[in-house]
Amino acid sequence: MKVEEIEDFFRALQDNICQAIEATDGIGKFREDIWAHHSGGGGRTRLIQNGDVLEKGGVNFSSVKGEVHPRLRQQMNLGDNDDFHFTATGVSIVMHPKNPHVPIIHMNVRYFELSNGTCWFGGGIDLTPHYVVETDAQFFHTTLKSACDRHHPDFYEKFSKWADDYFYIPHRNETRGIGGIFFDYMKPDEAGNGNALSKRQLFDFVKDIGESFAPIYTALMQKHRNDPFTEQQKQWQFLRRGRYVEFNLVWDRGTKFGLETNGRTESILMSLPPQANWEYNFEPQPGSEEAKTLELLKKGLNWAS
Amino acid sequence: MKVEEIEDFFRALQDNICQAIEATDGIGKFREDIWAHHSGGGGRTRLIQNGDVLEKGGVNFSSVKGEVHPRLRQQMNLGDNDDFHFTATGVSIVMHPKNPHVPIIHMNVRYFELSNGTCWFGGGIDLTPHYVVETDAQFFHTTLKSACDRHHPDFYEKFSKWADDYFYIPHRNETRGIGGIFFDYMKPDEAGNGNALSKRQLFDFVKDIGESFAPIYTALMQKHRNDPFTEQQKQWQFLRRGRYVEFNLVWDRGTKFGLETNGRTESILMSLPPQANWEYNFEPQPGSEEAKTLELLKKGLNWAS
Repeated sequence: MKVEEIEDFFRALQDNICQAIEATDGIGKFREDIWAHHSGGGGRTRLIQNGDVLEKGGVNFSSVKGEVHPRLRQQMNLGDNDDFHFTATGVSIVMHPKNPHVPIIHMNVRYFELSNGTCWFGGGIDLTPHYVVETDAQFFHTTLKSACDRHHPDFYEKFSKWADDYFYIPHRNETRGIGGIFFDYMKPDEAGNGNALSKRQLFDFVKDIGESFAPIYTALMQKHRNDPFTEQQKQWQFLRRGRYVEFNLVWDRGTKFGLETNGRTESILMSLPPQANWEYNFEPQPGSEEAKTLELLKKGLNWAS
Repeated sequence: MKVEEIEDFFRALQDNICQAIEATDGIGKFREDIWAHHSGGGGRTRLIQNGDVLEKGGVNFSSVKGEVHPRLRQQMNLGDNDDFHFTATGVSIVMHPKNPHVPIIHMNVRYFELSNGTCWFGGGIDLTPHYVVETDAQFFHTTLKSACDRHHPDFYEKFSKWADDYFYIPHRNETRGIGGIFFDYMKPDEAGNGNALSKRQLFDFVKDIGESFAPIYTALMQKHRNDPFTEQQKQWQFLRRGRYVEFNLVWDRGTKFGLETNGRTESILMSLPPQANWEYNFEPQPGSEEAKTLELLKKGLNWAS
């Protein structure tokens, strides 16, 4: 399988997702920026702003090529002496809705290939409701579990735990949202706890995850787009977006890597919300919907069981 | 000189600054939280919100004691075998005004002492105008230069350059604001390019810097508190605050260190603005006041000369 086949899939995935999101939003339209990366390759960043459902959302495709950066070498435990070139391609998405009852969502699917033949897939999808709705959390996780189960019986358990650990804000002792799945360094000969999947099988899994995005999120957009909300609930949304900023800028490995290796800043930071607030030492009223949400932002809740 | 003398000065500095800020603001009052640090010692955090001039401002005093954390050991190039205890004490300030013509300001003065007798001072003060006003930048830098010059002829040149390098946002290729001074690891036997200052002399310098804060900032509050501003200028302020968030969460060493060593999150993040916005790929109109400000957010402008 050549890298072009994977790039073509990711490009088409970006097209299909943007089309589904636009159709569901009804008003917002994506604008596109085509850009080149300083080391080679480039991408196309698509932004939707001020839609009917979405306040700001980004869907980014990129395929960056170049020599392996020292920072990446270190992160991947590569030797110093070989002349490694890489291709890194993928699709990244973050959506910030207007209505605080519609959740924030993030998805990323990606593929790395080194000139020595090593390659791997990675990705993840996680949901960050401003207000946790248990039936939505169950729907989200059971949909992801079905997608995982079609490819390997261990994937959901392993990758949902990985998401709990990855999408976690240590300085707040909170998960970012209600989790999802996260996976990385899935190499053809090592994946699946000893039950190796071929490269084609891994790609099929990643395709399935990528294609699960639009049905999941358009359903949640439709379900909650007309939920009434108060000014106080909008303020809570701004505070939760503040946490989203904290996670992305302080802890997210992909964001840090992108910023430190001189990636395209506007594409990396398209994940940031249009507006975020911070209020010193804010604590919701005991028993409130906001307090209930905080109680559900923790690891190991097993929404799919 | 005992550490208690330095702690007493920092406590009094916090008191004096809060008093001067309250008197100038006229409406806002500081509320205080006393807290203990998990490793020993603690602090008192004071927050002012919704004042007449200040939208949100924090003045934090702390004196934290404990065993040297592995993360700090590494940062300070300490050996692994000795049983180091430390005291870290200081005052940190960030002020976010309502009026976009009043600048954001930050100040920090601090002192570290290790159980082996090693000690050093550090600190800095920098100004982040939403709109750069050249006469304000000159006033700010010449005031700091005078304070530096009273203690060592090389300090201003050295520390203003250090501030340009420290308060810099690589992924935006912008300085955070118009700089100021920054200094660290000033040890009694090493400071001043070979012209050693005694511990008492270094403390006198740090006192002078700390005491320069209130006169500088109350003057700028008064000068601009009643400047008229438009909704579009307020929006620009929110975008500039977004950059402030990016600097503090991605690049600021003190913030990262605090969050990674399980410091008191609300005291560390009191530096974040009450509201920050991000707009994809925003670029001000050529020739506008916003564009002129961006042109002045670079290193080496020599405002004091």
